[in-house]
Amino acid sequence: MSHDHATRLKRAAEEAAASGLEALLIAPSADLLYLTGYDPPPLERLTALIVRPAGEPVLLVPELERPRALNSPGADLLDIRSWRDGEDPYEAVRRIVSAAGTYGVADRMWASHLLGLEGTLPGARFLPASRTLSRLRARKDESEVALLARAARSADEAFRRICREGLEGRAEEDVARSLARHITESGHDAAAFTIVASGPNGASPHHEPGSRGIREGDAVVLDFGGRVGGYCSDVSRTVCVGTPTEELREVHEIVREAQQAAFAAVRPGVPAEEVDAAARGVIDDAGYGDAFLHRTGHGIGLEEHEDPYLVAGNAEPLEVGMCFSIEPGIYLEGRFGVRIEDIVTVTPDGGLRLNSANRELASVM
Amino acid sequence: MSHDHATRLKRAAEEAAASGLEALLIAPSADLLYLTGYDPPPLERLTALIVRPAGEPVLLVPELERPRALNSPGADLLDIRSWRDGEDPYEAVRRIVSAAGTYGVADRMWASHLLGLEGTLPGARFLPASRTLSRLRARKDESEVALLARAARSADEAFRRICREGLEGRAEEDVARSLARHITESGHDAAAFTIVASGPNGASPHHEPGSRGIREGDAVVLDFGGRVGGYCSDVSRTVCVGTPTEELREVHEIVREAQQAAFAAVRPGVPAEEVDAAARGVIDDAGYGDAFLHRTGHGIGLEEHEDPYLVAGNAEPLEVGMCFSIEPGIYLEGRFGVRIEDIVTVTPDGGLRLNSANRELASVM
Repeated sequence: MSHDHATRLKRAAEEAAASGLEALLIAPSADLLYLTGYDPPPLERLTALIVRPAGEPVLLVPELERPRALNSPGADLLDIRSWRDGEDPYEAVRRIVSAAGTYGVADRMWASHLLGLEGTLPGARFLPASRTLSRLRARKDESEVALLARAARSADEAFRRICREGLEGRAEEDVARSLARHITESGHDAAAFTIVASGPNGASPHHEPGSRGIREGDAVVLDFGGRVGGYCSDVSRTVCVGTPTEELREVHEIVREAQQAAFAAVRPGVPAEEVDAAARGVIDDAGYGDAFLHRTGHGIGLEEHEDPYLVAGNAEPLEVGMCFSIEPGIYLEGRFGVRIEDIVTVTPDGGLRLNSANRELASVM
Repeated sequence: MSHDHATRLKRAAEEAAASGLEALLIAPSADLLYLTGYDPPPLERLTALIVRPAGEPVLLVPELERPRALNSPGADLLDIRSWRDGEDPYEAVRRIVSAAGTYGVADRMWASHLLGLEGTLPGARFLPASRTLSRLRARKDESEVALLARAARSADEAFRRICREGLEGRAEEDVARSLARHITESGHDAAAFTIVASGPNGASPHHEPGSRGIREGDAVVLDFGGRVGGYCSDVSRTVCVGTPTEELREVHEIVREAQQAAFAAVRPGVPAEEVDAAARGVIDDAGYGDAFLHRTGHGIGLEEHEDPYLVAGNAEPLEVGMCFSIEPGIYLEGRFGVRIEDIVTVTPDGGLRLNSANRELASVM
């Protein structure tokens, strides 16, 4: 899958100009991958893409990675320069940009590099680059939505396979290993994460699968994802081993209604926080407000979590092409948890789910 | 393998006091793992360990990860507090620390978090935490050296297996996949990276294995590693498919001598840059100085690359327990490259190699 890096770089330069930035300073991250296709090893030597309102973008790399950079998809669009071990890479940046002004630095740049830049450019002001780049990255084009949709379908298939396989009597970590295999075998390039949280562990939203044996009557939260062409999947379903109790049915139904209410709230122009409020309203009304421990969702693309976040306080309006999770949950400490998550894209007519796995409470063996 | 987090936290507090810091602010990273054993998912919500000269360390986590934090190895040593989605996590930090003074921030903290802290603590000054923590992390204790030694032995075994398997006629990426399997099957918990750089690709030190078919006469740089109990291996050998040319023999011998000279320079009290100079001297004298594109080595432990760096300008004296790579190389553009790398630990009597794979130029099929 080849992306149009020339247009992306041009739009980044335009957005930098519109934001009054001297330059964007982009470290290895999804930002760099998005703009240039370059994905160097995540090591300590400074690599920085410098995008200015005018002029060719400069990619500054460690000398030993110059051949790798020259082989990257967007190399022809870049003025590739290098620095050698023993030289000061921040001075190398200073020689390219003017010292004063405001810079957008990649959110994921290491703090040690930002401190190096702050020391070398004492007249400069630094802001997170996401304020500028999110306007590009959050609105996916057709090829990006297609990759997210493929990833979502593969994740749905992995869910069907793990349910068919059965959970009873298995340790969470064993189920997690199987799930990782199903993720790749169902069409992902790689598995990224596998949460298997059974019984009381389900009350921990980011539970790390452990040695607990799954038994009849357990609610089990499965939350997992992988990558297709660099783009992420992320789906959650809660299943019951055997016959659910009345309480589990009721809590699951509340979460399902909250997820549906949030989904129904999606349309262009709606503030992101309204989608959160729609899910939260259902759960609050049912008396479980305190047990919904997190925001309703997060954007997804080259990163599992990225803008836009569906959270109180984010008044940013939804736009066509945005893609995000909708994943309300209820977490009852010491007992169980329920979460239901789909990836949704914004179309002119409203939301479109990219996941189609059954959202009803499934009973598995 | 359980590490003594109580002592590590105590020593970090002492080092923070000695450095005149208000606090260390440690984001998810090898620093956090080293101090507490906590290894949360690498996502965007702020997690920060706050270590002050006096008082219990505070671990500030997102509310939804509180149960996971409470389950982490060092939880009993920490005052675990949380913030909820929609709240300002930097304000939560400010309520714990005083606004003024100097703070050490984890080198790998995201720039977006450092900018958030700088905005919320405008009277504060920030420095890289590595200046303080390296004094702890760079000197490995016996259990850490034992893990690095196990990782090195496993890497040596993976090298033997890939050589036995043969390289001729295979694509680099196919060899890289096999190598990853050998890395785990030889005793690592996981493979981390696999550089397979054949023929002219060997001149790119961080080459990404691709579709090039390996043929008779090729020099092939194999540089790979994995993890054992969290600790890394990293070994490089250059082999020849079939019979080497006289030139390849000669260049390989120069690199082998440079590696030996650097190794022989290792002893407590020697400045790190002298080890670099020892390798560089041999390569300079042989007339290949410009083709040795990088420093001689890097520290290794919970991270593949960490302090101390063996590089011109680093006058830091070596100390007993430090562990680092010694990996000179010669890179001839368009033709071939040679690199030989071992992990070495500093003992009272000098260096001790943790790798034992043959350093002579091996001919493989």
